[in-house]
Parts: sequence; C-alpha cells; structure tokens
Amino acid sequence: MKSKSLVSIDQCTKEDILRILDNAARFEANPNRVLLEGKVAATLFFEPSTRTRLSFETAVNRLGGRVVGFQDASTTSSSKGETLKDTILMVSNYADLIIMRHYLEGAARYASEVTGIPVINAGDGANQHPSQTLLDLYTIRQTQNRLHDLQITIVGDLKYGRTVHSLIVGMSHFNPSFHFVAPEELRMPDEQKHFCDKQGIPYVEHTDFTEEIINHSDILYMTRVQRERFTDLEEYERVKNVYILRKDMLSQSKANLRILHPLPRVNEIAYDVDDSPKAYFIQQARNGLFVRQAILCDVLGINHLI
Amino acid sequence: MKSKSLVSIDQCTKEDILRILDNAARFEANPNRVLLEGKVAATLFFEPSTRTRLSFETAVNRLGGRVVGFQDASTTSSSKGETLKDTILMVSNYADLIIMRHYLEGAARYASEVTGIPVINAGDGANQHPSQTLLDLYTIRQTQNRLHDLQITIVGDLKYGRTVHSLIVGMSHFNPSFHFVAPEELRMPDEQKHFCDKQGIPYVEHTDFTEEIINHSDILYMTRVQRERFTDLEEYERVKNVYILRKDMLSQSKANLRILHPLPRVNEIAYDVDDSPKAYFIQQARNGLFVRQAILCDVLGINHLI
Amino acid sequence: MKSKSLVSIDQCTKEDILRILDNAARFEANPNRVLLEGKVAATLFFEPSTRTRLSFETAVNRLGGRVVGFQDASTTSSSKGETLKDTILMVSNYADLIIMRHYLEGAARYASEVTGIPVINAGDGANQHPSQTLLDLYTIRQTQNRLHDLQITIVGDLKYGRTVHSLIVGMSHFNPSFHFVAPEELRMPDEQKHFCDKQGIPYVEHTDFTEEIINHSDILYMTRVQRERFTDLEEYERVKNVYILRKDMLSQSKANLRILHPLPRVNEIAYDVDDSPKAYFIQQARNGLFVRQAILCDVLGINHLI
Repeated sequence: MKSKSLVSIDQCTKEDILRILDNAARFEANPNRVLLEGKVAATLFFEPSTRTRLSFETAVNRLGGRVVGFQDASTTSSSKGETLKDTILMVSNYADLIIMRHYLEGAARYASEVTGIPVINAGDGANQHPSQTLLDLYTIRQTQNRLHDLQITIVGDLKYGRTVHSLIVGMSHFNPSFHFVAPEELRMPDEQKHFCDKQGIPYVEHTDFTEEIINHSDILYMTRVQRERFTDLEEYERVKNVYILRKDMLSQSKANLRILHPLPRVNEIAYDVDDSPKAYFIQQARNGLFVRQAILCDVLGINHLI
Repeated sequence: MKSKSLVSIDQCTKEDILRILDNAARFEANPNRVLLEGKVAATLFFEPSTRTRLSFETAVNRLGGRVVGFQDASTTSSSKGETLKDTILMVSNYADLIIMRHYLEGAARYASEVTGIPVINAGDGANQHPSQTLLDLYTIRQTQNRLHDLQITIVGDLKYGRTVHSLIVGMSHFNPSFHFVAPEELRMPDEQKHFCDKQGIPYVEHTDFTEEIINHSDILYMTRVQRERFTDLEEYERVKNVYILRKDMLSQSKANLRILHPLPRVNEIAYDVDDSPKAYFIQQARNGLFVRQAILCDVLGINHLI
Repeated sequence: MKSKSLVSIDQCTKEDILRILDNAARFEANPNRVLLEGKVAATLFFEPSTRTRLSFETAVNRLGGRVVGFQDASTTSSSKGETLKDTILMVSNYADLIIMRHYLEGAARYASEVTGIPVINAGDGANQHPSQTLLDLYTIRQTQNRLHDLQITIVGDLKYGRTVHSLIVGMSHFNPSFHFVAPEELRMPDEQKHFCDKQGIPYVEHTDFTEEIINHSDILYMTRVQRERFTDLEEYERVKNVYILRKDMLSQSKANLRILHPLPRVNEIAYDVDDSPKAYFIQQARNGLFVRQAILCDVLGINHLI
C-alpha cells in the first residue's frame, strides 16, 4: 500500500491483498486478540450504513480497542457549516484512526491527505468500498481454495454498483474471466470494460440472466438494484425484478459454485436459495469481521498478530 | 428456560425466575464483575427506548463486555428493504448475543428462531418485556422479603400495558391476589382474566381508584397511560388524568406498602409522593441493572459468578 | 470547587483551575492511563454536539472507563413527557458520573442538585461550558508560558457567546487586559462589563476589527457568529461576514501572538491563516482531550494520577 490509509482497492498490490487475506484467516481462527489496547477508532458515518459500521465496530472491540463516533451526519458540526477538513482535523486530535463513510466520491482520499492518522474508506458515494472488496476476495479464496483462473459472473446493477467495479480491480491480479449480466440501462460502464481490455481480462456481456451462464460459473456474484442510486424511481421499479435468482436455476450448476452478495438484498435472491449449500452470502458477511480486523492492524502497522 | 434466549416471561419456570433473582442479588452486592470479557452484545433498537437501552448497555459494560448496535431503525438496512431475518443473521455473524427492541409483536421470538445466538427481548410491541417483569419481581421480593401471598394492586392502563400482563404471569407462581384499577376503556383484557381464573388467582376489578383499595395493598403498581399505544388521541386526553396517586391517599396504607412504576411516569404519581418512604420506583429502576446483568449471564450460560 | 460537580467556571477557584491545568499537562504527556476502570460515564446530549461529545468520550475511553448515553434527545423518554429530574435519577442508577449538554440554561445545575453523582456541564444553552473555558486557559498558558498579565482580544459574537463570557471569568484570576471587538448588535453585555469593572479588569470596546488591535495582542480569540443563537436570520446574514481574519492582517503582530477559536469555525478565519505558526486552534481543540481527562478525574476525586 502506498500510504498507511486504505482509500481504494486500486492502491493495493497483489502482495498487499494476500497479506491482508492471510491475516484475516488468522482472525477467523481466533477473532479475540488484544492488539488495539489503548487505541481509539473514530467511526465517522456521514451517511448511515449499519452493516458496515457494526462490522468495523465489532472488529475494533474484539481487538480490545475503543470506538467513538457518529452514525449520521445530521447531528454533527458539519450541519453547522464546518468543512470536512476541520472535522477530520478535530477528530484526528482524539483518535488513532478514522473509519469513514461519506456520500461524496473522493471524501476518504481527501481526508487521508489532510490528517496524519490512517483513514479507512468505508464507502464514499458510488466510488470505493475497499473493505468490501477484500472480504469478497477472502470469500472467493475460501470457497474455491484459490483466487486464480476463476469464472466469475456478476449480475444486477453493474452501472452504479461500486462493489462490482472494485471487485474487477481486486480480481485483476488473479487472471479471472468475467460474465457481466445486466439490463441495458445498467450495463457495465466503458471505464471498467476498458480496464479489463487493458489488463487482458476476458469478459462477455449479457442482457438475459440464463442458466447456461450460471452453469459455467465458479462464483455467481448477485447485486442489489439500489433504489438510492436512482434519480428516476420509475426506472428503478421497472428493473428491480428482472434478475431474480431462484433455486431451480442452480440444478445444473458446478459443484464448486458459490453465490455471493454484498448485502443487503431485497428480492434479487429468492428465499428458497438460502437452503442451498451453494448460498454463501451470510458466511461472506461474516468474513467482513475478520477482514476488517486484518485491515485495522494493517493500517496501524501491527504485523505480529498475537 | 426452554431455550437460551429470553423472549417471554411465559417461558420462565419458577426455578428460572428464582435463579435469576438470586444472581441479581449477587450483582447488587457487586455490579462490576469481569464475566463478559471478549463478548460483544448487539443492542438492536428498532424502536427507541433510552431507559432500557442504557440499562442493558451499562449491564454489559459493568460485566466487561462490549456493545455495538443501533438506537433507532431509521438509519439501518431495514430502511433499505432488508428483512428482519437477514438483519438478524448479519448481526449474528458479529455478536455473541442480541438485545432487541422491536415495534412488532413476535419479532423477538422470530429472531430467536433464525439465529443460533441468544436473543433477549427488550420489548416487542404491546407483547412482552421480560426483563422488566423480572426486575419487578426482584423489587417486590426486595421490599416484602418474600414473593408469596401478596396483595398487589395494579392501576392505570391495564388494556395496553404489556408490563402489567407480564407481571401477572410472573407473579402467578407465587399465590398472589390482585386488584385491577382502570377506567372502563382500559380494563384488563379477558385473556389475562381467564389466565387468573385458570391459575386459581383471585382478582377484583375496580373503576374507582380509592384509598380503601390502597389500604389493603402490599404493592401498589402504577402505570402510565401511554400516548403511543392509543390510536384515538381524544380518548388518551380524556383518561390520562383519571388515576393520579397523591401523597394524602397513603395516610392509612400498610407500613410495608411500596409503590412501584415501570417508568417513565408522566403525571400519574404526584411529585409529593416522591418524599414518601413508600415510593420505591427509582430503586426499582436501579434494580434493572442487576437483573439485566443476571439475565445476560443466564442466556450465555455463565453460572459461576465470580 | 464547592461541589464535586463541574457546573460553571464561576465555581472554580484559582487553585481549582491550576490543579486541573497541571493534571491536564500530565495527560498531555501520556493520555492513556487506566484510572476509570469499572466506571461508567453517561453522556446525555439533549442537544447534539459532536465535537464536545467525541472529546469527552475519548477522554473516558483513554482512561479505561466505559460510556453509555444518547446523542440527541429526540429518541429519549423526555420525548414521552418525562421530567429532567426523573431522567437524571434514572441515569444516576446506572452510571458513576453524568456528562450533560442541554438546550436550557441552568439544566446542569438543576441536575447536579437532584443527583448524588457528579455532573459535568458540557454546555447548557447560552449559559456555561466550563470544560471549554478550562481548555482555553490551558492553551493560553501553553502558548504564553504564563496566564498572568496578558493582552487578550476577543472578536465576533460577544453577546450570545457563552465561551467568551466564561473566558472572562476564568481569566479574571490572572490580571488580564481585554479588547472586545464586535458589531454594535453583538456587543459584550453589560453584565460582563460590570464584572470586569468590579474585578478591576481593564477593557476597551471596538466596533472595527483593525490590525492595530491585533498588533497589541498576545491572544486573539476569534468566535463564530452562531446561526442557532439568532432568532432573526436576516440579522445573522448581515453580520456573519463582518469580522474575518485574514493572514495579511497578522504581518505586524507580536511573535508570541496565538490565534484561538472554540470551533467549529465557518468563515471567520480565512483558510490562509491555517498556514501561519500563529494559528493554534487545532492544537487548542486537541487540548480539550487532556483537560477533560483532568476534569473527569477531578470530579471523581481521583487525585493520584498514575
């Protein structure tokens, strides 16, 4: 990693990724390790995200650290007209690191540039959410026993989904093949396709979500069509039900197929899928705890895990 | 207890109740005991309740555990359309137990059925609030030196008050006699009266709140006429001032009489009552801390209190 | 201090102030000291104040204590009609001390009178905010190597600013000279001027913010014209831009001049000032952590700092 902050998956080398994944595996074996005693983490959620916040706060607590912060910017000084710079400098006076979710793209990078303490980006607008990508990679390796040479099918909102864009970057170190399945309006943007072209990563685009695509996949990565990313709610209503995974669609799938989802899901995975041993999104969420523990230690320079 | 969760006072045997009360007495003697080190409790308040939340969170902290959670569902994934099941499964990935308040009846039972970690019901709609009942029982025993053969008068909103309904169930193991004092519209429902009949528990209903009733009582349990339980606010305005306890009404009461209230009170206990040695509702609230510490240890299977 | 609570800077003797400042210096040398193990602090913010809350919560955590509380009264029992007295008595059952921000003047004093545990006033309306004053004094001493005989210029909203009023009281023990710079509508009230007269403290009032005033100052204390203190928003819009400090205004200032601000600032200090070595408001905010640690120990009677 170029800086001690974790702002974007783009900054992570293959070695960075593998080091964090290896440490996450140690935390999975034992998540309670007193490595952050005397440390205070500030969780600054300018935009609410309960799942990510609880995961990070549990990670800090299981490492023996303490948490201060806010869950919602509406009650903070920024609502009194304070700049992000002043808020970050203020918090940097008190805390040893900042875990930050913001509604503006680039907010985490900016924060990391004005403060001397590490900043972990817990999501900045439609841009980056690197801890999600690292837990996705951890889960893929855990279920496939490797990261290299996998067939990965990504389904749903490929236009607005930052999770999906970052997954492509994160997997680019490991020679993947992609299938992108989305309605016309939510196709993978040119930027990500150019990235694949440049990296020599093969991909095929589909507008129909068929069993044939599933049957060739090692990983089926489903995504939510997020209402909050739409300006046109009619478009949202029209597309949200198009790509729904049902259990019967898995009958000819590979034995090693695993279904991932960054959660929360709304209705894009039918509940009968939950019973399938190929459904892995709850365990995937669980991995978020261990990966975030590894990230916390990494940005703080704690390399010898006790 | 049938499961390791605490969903309802109905699930508690007499032995369960007495075990928790005995442990609570140990915590009253010394509330700071490091029994939950390395444990993380998730406080999921889908409906705000500061009193209950602070009491549980203090209990966890004084036991050396850590707390993560939310105070208000408006900023959670459930507002993005996530099901309760997915929210509970997500939190179960991170925490060792769940303390949950929900606006829907049955929510805590449902949560306890989908997760493998203990769930403590901190109130589900108008249904159950078992830790309140256990602290009521603890307080009754503390003030009367026994639970058996007591005259208990319950005043106020007997129709909507879950506290009152659960108190009847909790006391049913201990041969009580009840007086139910309520305006016509807020009378004790048939379900609770049938329960008393079936258990052979004597009760008398009153619509007037008289000194004569008070004079025969060992426990006078006042309740708030809760605005948030009414759909018709005019009915609320009409009845809220009907049953107000004033100090002069206590002049002929028994020496051992103690006045309880689940709090918060609005105006149903006049402030001059606070000076009476028979007013016990503040100490009752204090007992909530010790009883909740005992409940936490009970659901986690921690039986040897250090 | 007359009581173990800290309600107002008026209650602090010169010895109280110096003792707290000396202990704060010890915390600046080492902020992580396990002095509050087993203690629970309740942070009751009836009015949001992220900066003050995070500062106090970090202080408690770095001392090994635990925090429970609320950030906003809208979800508390007070919104159900509970009195402040009952809320304070309830919290006193659980916590070892209360840190309280309230929108009403006098709320902290009232709370300290109804409870037996210490109350730290973290701001009550336009009245008092003693921990801010103590951190201001700490910062003045830190930058000037003394508190006595200083020229202090206070600029901005001198009418509504509780910070400014308390600073005058706090400094009154140390023979200061003041310059008060404010627009006509926001002049220093008679009460504070009478206080200076009575104490024999010289002051000069100005309506123009000139370099000449700056050039004579040891401390330049800038304040925000707070929108939330105005009932007439037109008056706010008119005066908010009148007193802006720019870097070029510092060219002839004394070498020891330091610029303070209670923060958050909006636009009353231009960003080019941040680069000046005379800008000290970020370090001033940092001192809040150490001073609040000293206050916490002081009200709890912890005198031997390990």
